[in-house]
Amino acid sequence: MNETQQKDFSFLKEAIRQRASTFNHHLSTYLPDKEPKHLYDASRHLPLSGGKRLRPVITMLATEALTGTYEQCMPFAAALEIMHNFTLVHDDIMDNADLRRGSPTVHSDYGLPTALLAGDCLFAISFQATLRLKVPPTEFKTLQEQFITCIIDICEGQQEDMDFEERKIVSEEEYMQMIKKKTAVLFALSSRSAGIITHSSKEHIKALDTYGLSLGLAFQIWDDYLDMSSTAETLGKDIGNDIRNGKKTLIAVHALKNAQGQDKEILDALFGNRNASDLDIQKVHGVFERAGSISYAKDSAIQYNEKAKEALAVLPKSEAKEILTLLADYAIQRTH
Amino acid sequence: MNETQQKDFSFLKEAIRQRASTFNHHLSTYLPDKEPKHLYDASRHLPLSGGKRLRPVITMLATEALTGTYEQCMPFAAALEIMHNFTLVHDDIMDNADLRRGSPTVHSDYGLPTALLAGDCLFAISFQATLRLKVPPTEFKTLQEQFITCIIDICEGQQEDMDFEERKIVSEEEYMQMIKKKTAVLFALSSRSAGIITHSSKEHIKALDTYGLSLGLAFQIWDDYLDMSSTAETLGKDIGNDIRNGKKTLIAVHALKNAQGQDKEILDALFGNRNASDLDIQKVHGVFERAGSISYAKDSAIQYNEKAKEALAVLPKSEAKEILTLLADYAIQRTH
Repeated sequence: MNETQQKDFSFLKEAIRQRASTFNHHLSTYLPDKEPKHLYDASRHLPLSGGKRLRPVITMLATEALTGTYEQCMPFAAALEIMHNFTLVHDDIMDNADLRRGSPTVHSDYGLPTALLAGDCLFAISFQATLRLKVPPTEFKTLQEQFITCIIDICEGQQEDMDFEERKIVSEEEYMQMIKKKTAVLFALSSRSAGIITHSSKEHIKALDTYGLSLGLAFQIWDDYLDMSSTAETLGKDIGNDIRNGKKTLIAVHALKNAQGQDKEILDALFGNRNASDLDIQKVHGVFERAGSISYAKDSAIQYNEKAKEALAVLPKSEAKEILTLLADYAIQRTH
Repeated sequence: MNETQQKDFSFLKEAIRQRASTFNHHLSTYLPDKEPKHLYDASRHLPLSGGKRLRPVITMLATEALTGTYEQCMPFAAALEIMHNFTLVHDDIMDNADLRRGSPTVHSDYGLPTALLAGDCLFAISFQATLRLKVPPTEFKTLQEQFITCIIDICEGQQEDMDFEERKIVSEEEYMQMIKKKTAVLFALSSRSAGIITHSSKEHIKALDTYGLSLGLAFQIWDDYLDMSSTAETLGKDIGNDIRNGKKTLIAVHALKNAQGQDKEILDALFGNRNASDLDIQKVHGVFERAGSISYAKDSAIQYNEKAKEALAVLPKSEAKEILTLLADYAIQRTH
């Protein structure tokens, strides 16, 4: 990464941080501190624990790119973030995860029953947030339809992700469909909703949809790439567990299709083998490298980055558009 | 129960059954049989397993009482039933319950992660159902607001119910607030929504609200009464468990406040004692009887039954109104 890019990203990070700060102030107005205390403490735990707020900030930036200000989109931005948090609270229960963002998960601190209820409560509150939108009835109904479809897609994506761990082979098309639903549709809605809220042209709405979807895919695939691009010696615990669980990342999907001969045998024996040793994990990583799967994923993420940036071309020149462009570059240049 | 009443209830049951059959046909159009199969099979499991459909049938009857037909309310009736089922799927996870309506619970058959997701999916589908309503924007927004408030109330009620098991003393006011949220608000919305959908007068909407709320309370308190009105010899396993878990029913709340002397000591020692023997359970039951708590609950249910029927007075005479009146009587005359 050269010095110019470094400078750009510090500008990007500051631009995001400023909007996230405004957003956090707005968000807290949806999350009451009331009785029953155990339930509302649990509901507030994750959404008020920070995070980059990428999704609502994308909505804010896209609204700015269209109209110059972001005020109008704030209730929907809040709805998206609260809904995202509801899915995380429930995902952590499903995955039996102890930590998220370095803090105990909701069910670790409050027990499973209250965590489940807190997720439900956040789900309901996310709909409450949509009701604060000041848009005409037609746009309101469109936004609600798309909000619900997005939630159903996320549920389906999560189920497919779980189903895939049990399967030997998953096609690249199936994998792409899964991460599209599990991750990218929410980015797409975060971006596209700005166009609906501001009653923008179909062309702009479509462009923002493509931007968000491509950005979400680039983020997800780059995550897969980052996890695996460490040298064999520094391979972390997570990668080991993903390989032992047979987790179908784009890299794994590519290698399972393309590895030949002895490499294929290594995958057959060790990928998805819960008893694989640390040495076995290194062997699988070696197969991923030789099959060109790691660079394949990297190239794929870069293609989605380009698609995201191209989509923005139809929008008028603005600082917000510049920031959205930088965000697309950040998705595939970040090192963690 | 005299013969006339018996006859009335068979008319009531047939009236409910007919509408439930129409409703079931409508309901199935919201519950697709598609991929990912495991998720949608789990989502369809409970809502398509039957049940009396009391809540949507109340919406249908109230709509009939106001306009003569029920077509207009069907999407909202479906939303209410699907939402009710979502809360049951999640409640069964929280309660670790193996059976519901005599069949395995969703998590027993599909595992916890998929059951949790299926509940989330039903939650989202319930909102999808509201979007099919053909009502003006103002009514649509009012219905959505009330639908969301109802879900949040149910979450709060469920949390309070869990919290109360851990507490030694719960006031009658707290208990009534809890069952109001956990059970009665959904009956109230099932009834009241008919008035909103049909753009009826404030007086009629208020009357239907009072009817539904009172009916829900009567049903819940009568359930508590039925459980405890068995003779000591036939006390079932559920009652034993409720006493061992310190479950705060209206009967328990009344007895904990009113039992004196030795009876008070029995409650202190045995109510909420997980090691209580079957003989201990009979002793607690004796205290409930001597404190007048069982007949207190019976009287309370009858009062709510009367309040429900009185509320209907302002509605024009119709067969649907007669059926709603019979339903209120059934709530406090059924024997199981």
